[in-house]
Amino acid sequence: MAKIYVVGIGPGKKGDMTFRAYDALEKSDVIIGYKTYIDLIKEYFPEKELISSPMKKEVDRCREVVEIAESGKTVSLISSGDAGIYGMAGIMLEIVPESIETEIIPGVTASNAAAATAGAPLMHDFATISLSDLLTDWDLIKKRVDLASQGDFVISLYNPKSKGRTTQIEDAAEIMLKYKSPETPVAIVRNAGREDERVTAATLGTMLEHEIDMLTVIIIGNSKTFMKNGKIITPRGYKY
Amino acid sequence: MAKIYVVGIGPGKKGDMTFRAYDALEKSDVIIGYKTYIDLIKEYFPEKELISSPMKKEVDRCREVVEIAESGKTVSLISSGDAGIYGMAGIMLEIVPESIETEIIPGVTASNAAAATAGAPLMHDFATISLSDLLTDWDLIKKRVDLASQGDFVISLYNPKSKGRTTQIEDAAEIMLKYKSPETPVAIVRNAGREDERVTAATLGTMLEHEIDMLTVIIIGNSKTFMKNGKIITPRGYKY
Ligand SMILES: C[S@@+](CC[C@H](N)C(=O)[O-])C[C@H]1O[C@@H](n2cnc3c(N)ncnc32)[C@H](O)[C@@H]1O
Ligand SMILES: C[S@@+](CC[C@H](N)C(=O)[O-])C[C@H]1O[C@@H](n2cnc3c(N)ncnc32)[C@H](O)[C@@H]1O
Repeated sequence: MAKIYVVGIGPGKKGDMTFRAYDALEKSDVIIGYKTYIDLIKEYFPEKELISSPMKKEVDRCREVVEIAESGKTVSLISSGDAGIYGMAGIMLEIVPESIETEIIPGVTASNAAAATAGAPLMHDFATISLSDLLTDWDLIKKRVDLASQGDFVISLYNPKSKGRTTQIEDAAEIMLKYKSPETPVAIVRNAGREDERVTAATLGTMLEHEIDMLTVIIIGNSKTFMKNGKIITPRGYKY
Repeated sequence: MAKIYVVGIGPGKKGDMTFRAYDALEKSDVIIGYKTYIDLIKEYFPEKELISSPMKKEVDRCREVVEIAESGKTVSLISSGDAGIYGMAGIMLEIVPESIETEIIPGVTASNAAAATAGAPLMHDFATISLSDLLTDWDLIKKRVDLASQGDFVISLYNPKSKGRTTQIEDAAEIMLKYKSPETPVAIVRNAGREDERVTAATLGTMLEHEIDMLTVIIIGNSKTFMKNGKIITPRGYKY
């Protein structure tokens, strides 16, 4: 029976992929996804039919997945990290007809991978916000950054900046600084879990001085977050 | 060389564990963790020294890990899900001396696993909040639930209820209802990714009628979240 898997392949290397994700790819006749993600997994599946699909063609990609499944093949649609976090799971479920079995396979999302390399910044309540205003009103995003800062949440920012979208991270920093100290530790993690991973420990006051791009996730601490031995730690509150 | 791994083993079954997590356990002389988590992995490592440690003894557990590493052994401290999310990564890094190499290995956290079984509720900005007031002021937790609801975040609640702590989820529901419609879809997921997984699709208005306990994670949608074919979907905003 044809089946669709929507697979979160983790942040990059095979090590951070789950067994279930790998098995789904192994069982698939076709693997389809954005080119960067296909490049991440192709060495493990050299015999498979791999389809690279361009960015901003997410809806077309899902329709193609449905067609492949309807032709009787098993197909995996891949996202980096977790497919259910700013990935392909939602739009795939919106489009797929009920008759086709569809399984979502969770993965390690970018912020979890980034947190682990930076230390343990996500140990307390956190808000995950995408700064991309391609599909979301910028006013709503700003409001969310404001409310999350007011609530002293740790804040994890996806899509902080791209070539064409450079001011959002500046506005976000300004809003966070209304409530959070400029000394607040910040982890800037580029290519978490990939060959060229780079972790920068900064502060909210200085983070804009560092390189930030669309391969970066940024984690801003809460009022208790501190640095120890180069690691960023948000305490949960244990006494010791 | 002795080394400490802090390992997120995923929500339950081996399938949702990463290759790197499995390898770390394989390389360890000793695996230590809360009994429920040791039970989840012991069948794969029958030859290892496994140490079950009681709940609420997190600091003692970390000190024991340091002692084991100082004796020259490689030791894995395990958490379910991701060790960096309400797990053992923070307190371990707070306690460990700089001289001992410590690696945090990320995992699939409960809300990501729960989201995947329920559909794709976490596709847009979300706030992760623990309702446990053991280590956090209840007033701060309530404030966070309030601000996250005001911001129309999807909200993922960890530690929603335990035998001794039953009113928090009621207060949280009341706060969310100030801003969110009672029709808002809610996923109540118990034992995500385990043998006895149970997914209940409810609404914010009715969620308290369902069984909720400390093995449950609850995901409350935003104003756009909808149900389709029994799945809960938060649209990212793609037009189709
Ligand atoms: C469209 S979102 C996809 C998120 C993905 N589904 C996940 O769960 O990680 C793309 C954004 O995720 C973040 N991201 C994804 N992979 C990353 C990695 N390996 N390192 C750092 N950031 C990453 C960046 O902020 C990037 O702009
Ligand atoms: C102390 S926290 C540990 C969280 C864990 N480190 C993680 O990343 O999933 C315990 C809470 O996590 C949630 N939880 C952990 N594992 C779960 C599972 N398999 N299914 C549902 N909820 C789970 C429940 O809300 C539980 O009360």
